[in-house]
Order: sequence, then C-alpha cells, then structure tokens
Amino acid sequence: MKQPSVTIIGSGNVAFHLGIALKESGFPIVQVYGRRMERARWLADKVSATPADSLSDIHNGADVYFLAVSDDAIESLSQKLKLPGKVVAHTSGSQPTPSLQTVSARTGVFYPLQSFKIGRKVDWTHLPILLTGEDEVLAKLFPLARALSKHVAVITDAQRSALHLAAVFINNFTNHCFTIAREITDDAQVDFSHLTPLATHTVKQALEHDTRDLQTGPARRNDLQTIRHHLSLLADDPALKAVYESMTQHIQTYYDKA
Amino acid sequence: MKQPSVTIIGSGNVAFHLGIALKESGFPIVQVYGRRMERARWLADKVSATPADSLSDIHNGADVYFLAVSDDAIESLSQKLKLPGKVVAHTSGSQPTPSLQTVSARTGVFYPLQSFKIGRKVDWTHLPILLTGEDEVLAKLFPLARALSKHVAVITDAQRSALHLAAVFINNFTNHCFTIAREITDDAQVDFSHLTPLATHTVKQALEHDTRDLQTGPARRNDLQTIRHHLSLLADDPALKAVYESMTQHIQTYYDKA
Repeated sequence: MKQPSVTIIGSGNVAFHLGIALKESGFPIVQVYGRRMERARWLADKVSATPADSLSDIHNGADVYFLAVSDDAIESLSQKLKLPGKVVAHTSGSQPTPSLQTVSARTGVFYPLQSFKIGRKVDWTHLPILLTGEDEVLAKLFPLARALSKHVAVITDAQRSALHLAAVFINNFTNHCFTIAREITDDAQVDFSHLTPLATHTVKQALEHDTRDLQTGPARRNDLQTIRHHLSLLADDPALKAVYESMTQHIQTYYDKA
Repeated sequence: MKQPSVTIIGSGNVAFHLGIALKESGFPIVQVYGRRMERARWLADKVSATPADSLSDIHNGADVYFLAVSDDAIESLSQKLKLPGKVVAHTSGSQPTPSLQTVSARTGVFYPLQSFKIGRKVDWTHLPILLTGEDEVLAKLFPLARALSKHVAVITDAQRSALHLAAVFINNFTNHCFTIAREITDDAQVDFSHLTPLATHTVKQALEHDTRDLQTGPARRNDLQTIRHHLSLLADDPALKAVYESMTQHIQTYYDKA
C-alpha cells in the first residue's frame, strides 16, 4: 500500500520533530513551508522535501497537510490556504478544530502531547498523539500517528482543551515551583541541593501514586501559624505571596479545611 | 568512646523514623514519651527504651533530648520540661531555635529535610540533616547526624526558614499541581494517563537542569489568547482560577514580560 504523502507547514520545534519522525517512518514529505525561510529550507533538506518559499507555492500534491505553527498563526494561515478535499490538521493543544474549516472541509487535529525542543531527542514510541476529527479525517491521521507511537487516542475538542490546561499545571507550574524554590534558597544564601532528595522523592511519589493521598504540608494540616510565618517571609514580594496564598487556599478548600 | 544516649519526645512520623535510625546506629535510647501513650509505648518497645507515661517521668539520664513533636507543641512542651545542662533539639523546619531556651541553655535544631511517613522506608544515607545551635550543641548533634547521613550541614534559623518555605513549593505545591491536573482531566472525562509521559519528562528535566532554562507555556510566551481561554475554562471555579492567575502573573513578571 502506498504511504500517504505529507506537507509540513511550519519550521519550529513541532514541525521539526514531526517532519523528521514521519520521514524516518517512511512517509514521503512533499513540501516544507515556514515563515523563517532559512529554517524551512534547512528542514526541507533534512526530510528530502522541496522548500516552499511562499504560501502560494504550496500545491495540492500531498495527501495530508500539517499546520505545525504557533497558535495565533493557525487562523491567519487557514484563511490564506485553499486545499479543498485534502486532510489538513493542526498540531495545537489549545486550538479547536473548526478554525481550519476555510482551508478544507476535511480538517482535524494531530496533537502530540509533549514539550518539544529542537536538538533534544524525542521518544515518539510512548508519546501520546491525540487525534480529533470526523471519521474520514481520522482514517487518514490514524495510520500516521500509529506509525510514530503506540499511544494514540481519539478525543474531542473539549477534552484536548482540558488536557492542555492540565498540562500547564503538570509542566509549566510544577517547573516554576522549582524555580521559585531556587530563588528562595538563593536569596537566603543556603544550598539548593539540600532540597534535592525531597524533590526526587516528591516527583517519584507523584508519578507512582495518587497525589491526593500524598498531600502534606501546612495547608493540608491547616497549620495557620506556619502559613502566617511563610506569608511574613514573603511580605516584600506581593506576586509570590499571591502564589502562596492562592495555592494554600485551594489546598485548604480542596481538603475541606477552609 | 561511649555513644551518647538519647531520649525521644514524640511518637509521630519523625520520632518513629529518628528513633529507629538512631537505635540501629548503636545509640542507646533511654526513654520515649508521647502524648498518645499507646504509640509511645509501641515505639519505646521497638527501640528498647523505657516508655515515659507522663512528662514528669522524663528524667535527666540521657545526653541528648529530641523534641520530635508537632510545631505548635514545641513551645508548650519546652515550658514544662526542665533539663538544665542537657542538649535539647527540636526537629522542626519552621520553628526557630530560641523557643526551647526555657528547657535548657543548650538548645539546637536537628532538622531532617524529608517528608516522613510511618510504614514507608527512609533512606537516611543521603537525607539532608540540617543543624543549628551554638558550638557546644553542634559538637553533640554532629556525630549523631553523621552516623545517620552523609549529608549534614550547619545552617542558621533564617536559612532553615527559607528551606522550609522552599520545600512547600517543591513538595506540597508541586504535588497539588498533579492533583489539580487529575481533577481537570476527570471533569472532562479524559484519561489522565495521556499526561504521564509529559509529567515524567517534566520532573526528570527539573531534577537534571536549571528549571529557569526549561520554562515553557503560555505564561512564559506571554500568549494572552491561550491564557484567556484557560481562564474561561476555570470561570466557575474562582479558587482554581486564582491559582492559575497568580502563577501565570508570577511567571510573566519573573521573565519580565508583564
């Protein structure tokens, strides 16, 4: 059976990793287009595709078109592209499917739930690829996804939206909690490495157990004396104090101790 | 050289793990006292000590006294105990040293920076034990700490206070971010396991790199459209919306994009 061919629109992190992975799985890459022409040409070269120097150079010779661009570029691109009858999928966790409907009637979403960086290797085998679209769109996207990963699921726009929001908590906010901890220890001129075993323990536990059973600390115990003491330490940093207060209040409410 | 002997006041998680570890390292445990008498007797039995059924039964036959009790019990206990000339140390991250000065002139802090649970094994070898006190107190506490762990350091009250606050961000708030993510996916009836690879990746990276270089997401990019969308998803949950807003604002300010 002939492998479906692909055109990649975008030259950022997702476009790069997706293009390479599809090429390595044997799918022909027809064209690569990117706003930053140098990068697009470089990626086109890597995946043996023809670079498209302008949007109007993108032709209808591929089966599937991936819009692997930044969220706010999806709408404007989809107004400029006309690819009737082709499957056009964006790769964004936060954008709904319908924003592509001016491009083609056959639109979908191909959302790899991971944070990508050029130059860092991606393990596609267990990377969740979450698909959204009508059945005939899914029929085209599913084999591509399965060729890359064992973890493929079909979800709705609302479910993808929820996953994207949850990912902000799991990835962005967790990461920033570490940064805040480092700032606090730096300010007090105490070695951050005293916290390493606790951090290792915390994340190991969080991945292995239900975190609701693991919650400890002053907010969980409703230890108002310690909470007041912590707030006094943060008195001259209102933005950080607001983080501490809102998180503490949410934990208290969540465990019904407010 | 004769090992210094120890009396444990407390029968909770820290008292339990500390008592067992000291006993296993060859330090004689003289007495164990705990408000919950059943537990104290059980722990006394485990560490071959005499249980003290009331505070007035605690005698001055030990060299070092550990107050391994809840934060708010330290002050009241230290008003009731008279152990002149003895080294008395509490194990709390959030309490300053001076609160013990009515008990003895030789007070200190012996703070194991880890979250303990009875029934879960503790790896003491790499567990940071952070000591505070005058030199003659440290001279007594240091050998005990070193017998348990390779990671022993002397810090000030202010540094311990900062570490305790930082630990809330690293442990409690990170853990709660996972809980929130689970709630969001449960509400949307989408499988939490789609987030597992991202979570694994996040925590692995956070432990291996400087998290300031890893920060991504809508707040870091100042992607106001996505932030607005996320806030709209949280519109009917003001407490959670406040967490999202304060964390987002702190990330924006931190990276100078506000």
